[in-house]
Amino acid sequence: MSSDRLLDDFNAGKPAALARVVSIIENHREGFEQILASLHSRTGRARRIGLTGPPGAGKSSITALLVKRFRDAGLTVGVIAVDPTSPFTGGALLGDRVRMENVALDPGVFIRSMATRGSLGGLAAATREVADVLDAFGFDRLVIETVGVGQSELDVARTADTTLLILVPESGDSIQTLKAGVMEVADIFVVNKADRPGADRLRNDVELMLGLRKGVSFGNTPAHHGVDLKRANPARVAREAAKAENPTEWTPPVLSAIAIKEEGIDEIIAALDRHFAYLEQSGTLRTRRRERMRERVMDVVEDKVRGRLWKNTGTMSWLELQLPAVEEGSATPFGVADQLLRQRGELVRGEEEK
Amino acid sequence: MSSDRLLDDFNAGKPAALARVVSIIENHREGFEQILASLHSRTGRARRIGLTGPPGAGKSSITALLVKRFRDAGLTVGVIAVDPTSPFTGGALLGDRVRMENVALDPGVFIRSMATRGSLGGLAAATREVADVLDAFGFDRLVIETVGVGQSELDVARTADTTLLILVPESGDSIQTLKAGVMEVADIFVVNKADRPGADRLRNDVELMLGLRKGVSFGNTPAHHGVDLKRANPARVAREAAKAENPTEWTPPVLSAIAIKEEGIDEIIAALDRHFAYLEQSGTLRTRRRERMRERVMDVVEDKVRGRLWKNTGTMSWLELQLPAVEEGSATPFGVADQLLRQRGELVRGEEEK
Repeated sequence: MSSDRLLDDFNAGKPAALARVVSIIENHREGFEQILASLHSRTGRARRIGLTGPPGAGKSSITALLVKRFRDAGLTVGVIAVDPTSPFTGGALLGDRVRMENVALDPGVFIRSMATRGSLGGLAAATREVADVLDAFGFDRLVIETVGVGQSELDVARTADTTLLILVPESGDSIQTLKAGVMEVADIFVVNKADRPGADRLRNDVELMLGLRKGVSFGNTPAHHGVDLKRANPARVAREAAKAENPTEWTPPVLSAIAIKEEGIDEIIAALDRHFAYLEQSGTLRTRRRERMRERVMDVVEDKVRGRLWKNTGTMSWLELQLPAVEEGSATPFGVADQLLRQRGELVRGEEEK
Repeated sequence: MSSDRLLDDFNAGKPAALARVVSIIENHREGFEQILASLHSRTGRARRIGLTGPPGAGKSSITALLVKRFRDAGLTVGVIAVDPTSPFTGGALLGDRVRMENVALDPGVFIRSMATRGSLGGLAAATREVADVLDAFGFDRLVIETVGVGQSELDVARTADTTLLILVPESGDSIQTLKAGVMEVADIFVVNKADRPGADRLRNDVELMLGLRKGVSFGNTPAHHGVDLKRANPARVAREAAKAENPTEWTPPVLSAIAIKEEGIDEIIAALDRHFAYLEQSGTLRTRRRERMRERVMDVVEDKVRGRLWKNTGTMSWLELQLPAVEEGSATPFGVADQLLRQRGELVRGEEEK
């Protein structure tokens, strides 16, 4: 099938063309750049929801329930399950195979499990590209599910408009070690398996940390001094009052859910809607999407640089010749890198492709 | 302290200088390249052991036990615990805080928990750099512990001479989904918590998968036809015989351990020694280390390119001007990336630094 024909079918909304385009993009097959470029102007409509959390937190169950609610509301949904090279996630949607099979025949749902991209290009970049394809195809909602362990996965979560962090009481012990990266990426916290012991403590701990974080960012002393400080700080009181009417500040809610009983899903849907309203009204959506676009361009640049340098046999054989000296210690990786860029840096301009 | 003085102290084996150098390297502070370059010729002596597995597999306990055995044998040990931005690992060595405190006062042991590096440089590269520092300082063994979920962590594991994959019966269900990447990276499999139900099945499953992998790579039919095939294939019989004397082929052993009872550690130590002997005799050590050196140079090149492009305010403000067109859809990330490299690709040659 010619590329034009494929794109015509894609634009006509044919599912087979969608699957084919996703494969081409995911594997960076011949012509993927042209396809992405031609779809580009049609992206930006879908709401992108990132869903992350530790293995066993029930991410897949919550994804499945969100898909169901979205479908009930007449919305189409694309699901991207990022399945790292790891054995330990067990394939993101396997646990909910039965549940997901119900929707597998529904043309309003598209589910894609992503393999990990090799060294020439990152997982976050690949996920973003597939998300762009689903967006251009016309899906109303995209759910991007990743296991929240590891830098690549955090990068994936950052590509969403709204990020949900799913925690379970079992992860309570490690709440003290919650890193700034994870806390700052999450817009909505969900304590799943909320009927288990320790759920209340976990919720309290998360709320405490959020309070501290907020305290720091506004330059306040800890929460128990809050009342006095409010009196002493009229600007803050005014800001609090304004917030109630005009949501231009976002305090991440800490919700409870019991996914296997389908409890707490309405609250998650409501929080997603509230967060999206906040994103639009505060201008944050624009900022986030611009940031995403900037990262997108930077990813493409780095990808091109890697491709032009490392797929060039001249560069690789030159590098090979330097390695013995590096091994013996008479040359260093830094010296060789500098030399390589001086001698072959011209490649990255890509002039010879013209 | 001047850089020369610091290096003198480092070379004299002063622990304070080691800690300081590691910090400089880990955070890529001013002068880190010069330091790494000056240490470079002294690397290559330490044996690097990677230890990976799912959260809760007992990696830290096994790390602690390995450290103890190495110390008993009079060997010095550096431990690098790669703690991703994630909350979920709970800090790699926290669970063994007490046990590790025993060794914390021992100057023959150095423990470093790595934070995650931001976008300008990857975790695997940072880990490799710190490992080089510890190697140059003179540690006999390096244990690099990572949580085996996610691409970055797998990349970290790949920087070792020998990689141990620690599994537990609880991870048995997901053995079917063991990805090629993880299986191929592991030199030694350890089933920890081997007294729990499911341990035998897990070991069998792993052995079966290893058998299949071996079957494929040597073009044999499955194992139950082995006897007949051996008769029909004298070359293979000869190879099997040769293997016993001259271990130039490696079949990853699947060991059992109960770390909390300190059971199975001798077998792990013995397997590590056997694997290192195999690495040396087969020439694989040389190949692996050359590969590591090649990746090292490529990492440095990519790091330099990123630094030169993205830390250049001219590039960033040029990029900023293009973003509105990308958002409107009248330009694409690919077009802008090409233009950026044509116009500013000269930067990557780094001539202006001279």
